Amino acid sequence: MSEFNAKDHPHRRYNPLTGDWVLVSPHRAKRPWQGQIETAATEQNPSYDHSCFLCPTNSRISGDLNPDYKKPYVFTNDFAALTADTPFYQRSDDDLFVLKAERGTSRVICYSPDHSLTMPELSVAEIQNIVEEWIRQYQDLSKTYNWVQVFENKGAINGCSNPHPHGQVWANSTVPTLPAKADTAQREYLAKHGKNLLLNYAELEQHSGERTVVENDHWLVVVPFWASWPFETLVLPKAHVRRMEDLTPEQQAALADILQQITIRYDNLFQCSFPYSMGWHSAPYHNEAGADTAESIEHWQLHGHFYPPLLRSATIKKFMVGYEMLAETQRDMTPEQAAERLKQQSPVHYKQQSK
Amino acid sequence: MSEFNAKDHPHRRYNPLTGDWVLVSPHRAKRPWQGQIETAATEQNPSYDHSCFLCPTNSRISGDLNPDYKKPYVFTNDFAALTADTPFYQRSDDDLFVLKAERGTSRVICYSPDHSLTMPELSVAEIQNIVEEWIRQYQDLSKTYNWVQVFENKGAINGCSNPHPHGQVWANSTVPTLPAKADTAQREYLAKHGKNLLLNYAELEQHSGERTVVENDHWLVVVPFWASWPFETLVLPKAHVRRMEDLTPEQQAALADILQQITIRYDNLFQCSFPYSMGWHSAPYHNEAGADTAESIEHWQLHGHFYPPLLRSATIKKFMVGYEMLAETQRDMTPEQAAERLKQQSPVHYKQQSK
Ligand SMILES: O=P(O)(O)O[C@H]1O[C@H](CO)[C@@H](O)[C@H](O)[C@H]1O
Ligand SMILES: O=P(O)(O)O[C@H]1O[C@H](CO)[C@@H](O)[C@H](O)[C@H]1O
Repeated sequence: MSEFNAKDHPHRRYNPLTGDWVLVSPHRAKRPWQGQIETAATEQNPSYDHSCFLCPTNSRISGDLNPDYKKPYVFTNDFAALTADTPFYQRSDDDLFVLKAERGTSRVICYSPDHSLTMPELSVAEIQNIVEEWIRQYQDLSKTYNWVQVFENKGAINGCSNPHPHGQVWANSTVPTLPAKADTAQREYLAKHGKNLLLNYAELEQHSGERTVVENDHWLVVVPFWASWPFETLVLPKAHVRRMEDLTPEQQAALADILQQITIRYDNLFQCSFPYSMGWHSAPYHNEAGADTAESIEHWQLHGHFYPPLLRSATIKKFMVGYEMLAETQRDMTPEQAAERLKQQSPVHYKQQSK
Repeated sequence: MSEFNAKDHPHRRYNPLTGDWVLVSPHRAKRPWQGQIETAATEQNPSYDHSCFLCPTNSRISGDLNPDYKKPYVFTNDFAALTADTPFYQRSDDDLFVLKAERGTSRVICYSPDHSLTMPELSVAEIQNIVEEWIRQYQDLSKTYNWVQVFENKGAINGCSNPHPHGQVWANSTVPTLPAKADTAQREYLAKHGKNLLLNYAELEQHSGERTVVENDHWLVVVPFWASWPFETLVLPKAHVRRMEDLTPEQQAALADILQQITIRYDNLFQCSFPYSMGWHSAPYHNEAGADTAESIEHWQLHGHFYPPLLRSATIKKFMVGYEMLAETQRDMTPEQAAERLKQQSPVHYKQQSK
């Protein structure tokens, strides 16, 4: 019998943040694709679109007028999934019909007044403005809510309904399913190993370099060992940082730089405006239980996730269907192979190269 | 303050099979959609396509020839995600780099020789042939593997790469992530309540009728109280059935009937070939530990899941992105509203109605 080789043989890897496994079938990337083909995101948008709800000075669907903003502009979502004044209620019949009313809010963050740009095309200073806005949102919303979810859906193929560069913040009273798992996993890891899970992981990845895509003095971006999506990445601080609002000015500037670096690699990979969902996991707040202390959230490490849907090209995505929905996530190439391909990309955005 | 009303107010519901919550934002269905529009699946395919890899007498990508089959035809996937002879291997460095080699196989089940049909267009007798084939697959693959995943990806929008009516069976040595959770959840529920989780649930749903879509003597189809996907349904036997191969001939015939009933309602909802991923959770096998006994899997109840991606119409799907990937699944209408809409559909397939 031949010896096991992760590049050739099916295997499963464990995600220590969720407790889920992923089935890796490296040889499967060889199969021809005869399924659905998407539209490539290669269209160039104008800098201003009079019909866009997010462009400065335009009016939104609610009738509200956007100011002539120059820096990131935030407003409450006109169709928010969460409301601040939900009446309290809960039931739990037979442990089968379990329901709890939920309070929260949902905001939109316009990244730039320029309708035509996306994160990799913004300057590092402009991305830093976004980072600063994220921090203000954490500071503001944590006064009322226990979880603040900062995220961005980029690309029509990825459920984004407006190409104007923007992200969202949803905040709610109860820590949602996935961050609750990340909280437990990090707490248990610290208890068992006496080390912070993601800080230890970042050190080991930095040392190995095998899955590192980009890196600067304060940040590391890797395709995690347990990645689900083909080109998924994890953004990790090199120092212990519990929450986004704890970042020093140097760490904030370096974060803007690393976000530009990774998103440029992404766009260059398939020479398109690379779609993804991106977001942050920062330690939750415990408003009811009184103020948190540095010790009570010692196990937390701030981290960012990029989940991009594309698999083979600008027009062929990975479908997380059948087996994935019923049994387990499955991927068609190893995380090491994905990291290698991203790492090889030019640090200069492809639109700049052709100029 | 107004009183809580599940039809108007954001709330979270608990999925007792996975331990995950879902955020329900009923009012959000009112928002206009300006995002990606899919191609509606309304095209009529020919009964035979000479370029189809699954049609009888055609040759596949491997060069193998399909027989002139009349009943469901099964072959090993030419690009299987799992292999039977994977060499053994495992590592677990720092509880962070956890990897295990995995053995398994993957097969394709052609439902019918007719390229133009899908499940709702097959006769009950033809669907019963599929059910019998599923049972043969469970019987055969359980000799070698501990988990047998029967599923179908339907529709190009849903990652299906060939419209010829077919499903798949993937089998592997280790029980995958999601069925492992369903196993634990059912075991713990039986221990705590002295009742089978899904049998108890089916009785309560049958009594309420609020989420029931279709029903016959042996089966119940509901939009589960904790549904993630807009029109997700759960197929439940009315009696205690641990595994698909335990179904009596009457239960098998009734299953064929109920599958025809639910898939006709689905097609009628948006007057299209309704895309979905569908699959079965049947008690796992424990080949290493010796033969299972009825007692050791007493907590199990066989059940089928339908996960359809569409939200508003044949061309507008629900995107499980951003908040869903990072925090928690979110849905835009209540399960009760979805059940009501499905229930209202005609029992006659729309293509037959226009004849
Ligand atoms: O095996 P198929 O139909 O080619 O592929 C489809 O189903 C698989 C199992 O759910 C998925 O992993 C693939 O992403 C999907 O495209
Ligand atoms: O809020 P948007 O951008 O209109 O909507 C998008 O993001 C939401 C949060 O991830 C998802 O629930 C929607 O399915 C998606 O279309």
